[in-house]
Amino acid sequence: MWRDLAPVGRSATSGGYFRQPWASAETELRAWFAEQCEARGLTVETDGIGNQVAWWGTGDDGVLTGSHLDSVLDGGAYDGPLGVVSALAALDTLRARGFEPGRPLGIGVFVEEEGSRFGRACLGSRLVTGATTWDQAKELRDRDGVFLADAISDAGLDPARGLLDLDRVGTFVELHVEQGRDLVDRDVAVGLASEIWPHGRWRFDFAGQANHAGTTRMEDRHDPMLSYAMTALAANKQARLAGQRATFGRIAVEPNGTNAVPSLVTAWLDARASSDGALAELVEAIERQATDRAERDGTSLTLTAESVSGSVAFDTDLAARLAGLRDWPVIPTQAGHDAGILSEAGIPTAMVFVRNPTGISHSPDERAETADCLAGVEALADVLAELAGPGQPA
Amino acid sequence: MWRDLAPVGRSATSGGYFRQPWASAETELRAWFAEQCEARGLTVETDGIGNQVAWWGTGDDGVLTGSHLDSVLDGGAYDGPLGVVSALAALDTLRARGFEPGRPLGIGVFVEEEGSRFGRACLGSRLVTGATTWDQAKELRDRDGVFLADAISDAGLDPARGLLDLDRVGTFVELHVEQGRDLVDRDVAVGLASEIWPHGRWRFDFAGQANHAGTTRMEDRHDPMLSYAMTALAANKQARLAGQRATFGRIAVEPNGTNAVPSLVTAWLDARASSDGALAELVEAIERQATDRAERDGTSLTLTAESVSGSVAFDTDLAARLAGLRDWPVIPTQAGHDAGILSEAGIPTAMVFVRNPTGISHSPDERAETADCLAGVEALADVLAELAGPGQPA
Repeated sequence: MWRDLAPVGRSATSGGYFRQPWASAETELRAWFAEQCEARGLTVETDGIGNQVAWWGTGDDGVLTGSHLDSVLDGGAYDGPLGVVSALAALDTLRARGFEPGRPLGIGVFVEEEGSRFGRACLGSRLVTGATTWDQAKELRDRDGVFLADAISDAGLDPARGLLDLDRVGTFVELHVEQGRDLVDRDVAVGLASEIWPHGRWRFDFAGQANHAGTTRMEDRHDPMLSYAMTALAANKQARLAGQRATFGRIAVEPNGTNAVPSLVTAWLDARASSDGALAELVEAIERQATDRAERDGTSLTLTAESVSGSVAFDTDLAARLAGLRDWPVIPTQAGHDAGILSEAGIPTAMVFVRNPTGISHSPDERAETADCLAGVEALADVLAELAGPGQPA
Repeated sequence: MWRDLAPVGRSATSGGYFRQPWASAETELRAWFAEQCEARGLTVETDGIGNQVAWWGTGDDGVLTGSHLDSVLDGGAYDGPLGVVSALAALDTLRARGFEPGRPLGIGVFVEEEGSRFGRACLGSRLVTGATTWDQAKELRDRDGVFLADAISDAGLDPARGLLDLDRVGTFVELHVEQGRDLVDRDVAVGLASEIWPHGRWRFDFAGQANHAGTTRMEDRHDPMLSYAMTALAANKQARLAGQRATFGRIAVEPNGTNAVPSLVTAWLDARASSDGALAELVEAIERQATDRAERDGTSLTLTAESVSGSVAFDTDLAARLAGLRDWPVIPTQAGHDAGILSEAGIPTAMVFVRNPTGISHSPDERAETADCLAGVEALADVLAELAGPGQPA
């Protein structure tokens, strides 16, 4: 399966992946997933926006596993696909063990998990659970100004055909490559998730006055690049001191010409913290320093919260039940996942993490060792057998 | 003439101009210029890269005036076009006065003066004078990766057809809107240029390590955005303290995703100073601080000088002769011009500036009052009559 996936959407320059939703690489991955499911005798349903699910068995109170196939811009091979490939492989493992499910077992793929195109992380699962409504989402535009509705219909899909029905899902389990060094530090291949840190994205628009870069005296300028630069440094310092996370990784400058003082600098803050209160404090502290600097620069700041997700504690009963299966650590994550969205929607949810030797993610340097991936498949198969086995409690 | 030009390449959103070379707006302006010259009985020669010149009279030792029609991204209406329109209007004025030239009088338009597409300011005049060779230039690429040679041939031109012949040019005079507040402060409509400050463009490539914006601890990062941000602030401070100019107005980030620590931040420094030594000192001081910060961030800096122009003192004999025509101030400028390139190539050159009430340039807010523009035309007509009149010395 990895051999099939390796070339899809990969940049020859960086070796990283560009699998943006509703574009050609992702369409190819959707067809690949359908083919894999059909080869296993499962029929894939694709909903009106491109979410996919394939069930083994019929009826309600099913156990769903899976992840996503899209990537960040220039991302790694494992973030998302590892969960989908492991789900298919765990199904193969269960069948090889002669396992017969006592309740339906499904494999799902959610679209636009990374939010790399429309800026809303977990957009597919948010729409399915109603956390985001179609009326809110359809006005979103990508970097080229394309509306979400148009991108979806250009990909040959039709939102009017409806969304995945989660009524059949009694439990959700997502396997994911770890995006930090917790399992490396603990020297174990596989772990369970306890919670997702609260996190969000805020857009900072610093507006100034375009002017000639040569002739305009420094003291006559209203340069929004300076307001932004100080804010980027302040965000880093605040997060470092507080043991939280703050990143400015995306920026757009108008007119972005070498010999012009910019008129507008737009930058996106990604912030995460160990509690909702700590996150609010972190963003407020950054906003305060940005506003002060903008006043000194004669620029103005408009701050927009684009998406904010509160802390997600995964189902404790479920975690306790799974923790009994093997001796594995239960660790928090700072990354958002579709599992968080489904958990928020009231579906008992768990996550399985596979060790990442470098801790690096959202980068072509993301890695997972084959032995650890196989251990992840075994662990996922055990979890699915526990949850979907004949005679098991719901 | 302004009515013709007003809509070409103007953004409905900002009111600013996007007249990038070898693209549709500039092609339209080239046709407009040819039409204006033909209406005055002049024949326009267009060279293999799109530079244009139209002569009144034949022979050598001609007096050339003119400017450029391209703009920065989201630029003003006057920077460039004012010199071209004033040249045409000055010719009308001379004819209305019954003037007959004693030597040929030409009107010229140079391409890619702003360097907004291929990053080399005054590219048209640099190629014509040999300051840049075609072998150096043809490898240049625009933001979309298009080679200069392809852009030129896509515009229906052919560099193999050769470049403008400057052998006929004995003197060059460029009229330009002032890009600062010197004439406003002096309360006069028109002035003469003494010199152009040395200036240049340097590309700063800060390379780091892409990583997940949520899960990567702040202390584990190699974030080039921080190295850049500190450098942008340091450049501003250095220039402010030294009374010089330093601007970071253009930036490109890889992968430029909200939830990824960047792998690469490329930013362009525009720096200008009152002497070659002061400019070198300024850039060295910025580089030193950038390198120090990159070391602290675990990133690396590669610095590339993309174009550096030394100080240009305009022909002092010519300035003295023109200064005698009227009581006008002789002022320096921090902006580069085709006049600087022709002057460096050994052609006696002068510049006439027209007052800009706000001092703002490279912005939709750039302005010139009609009365000042008309005064500029009269002044240019006087200058041309002095230089090209019958019996005048060369």
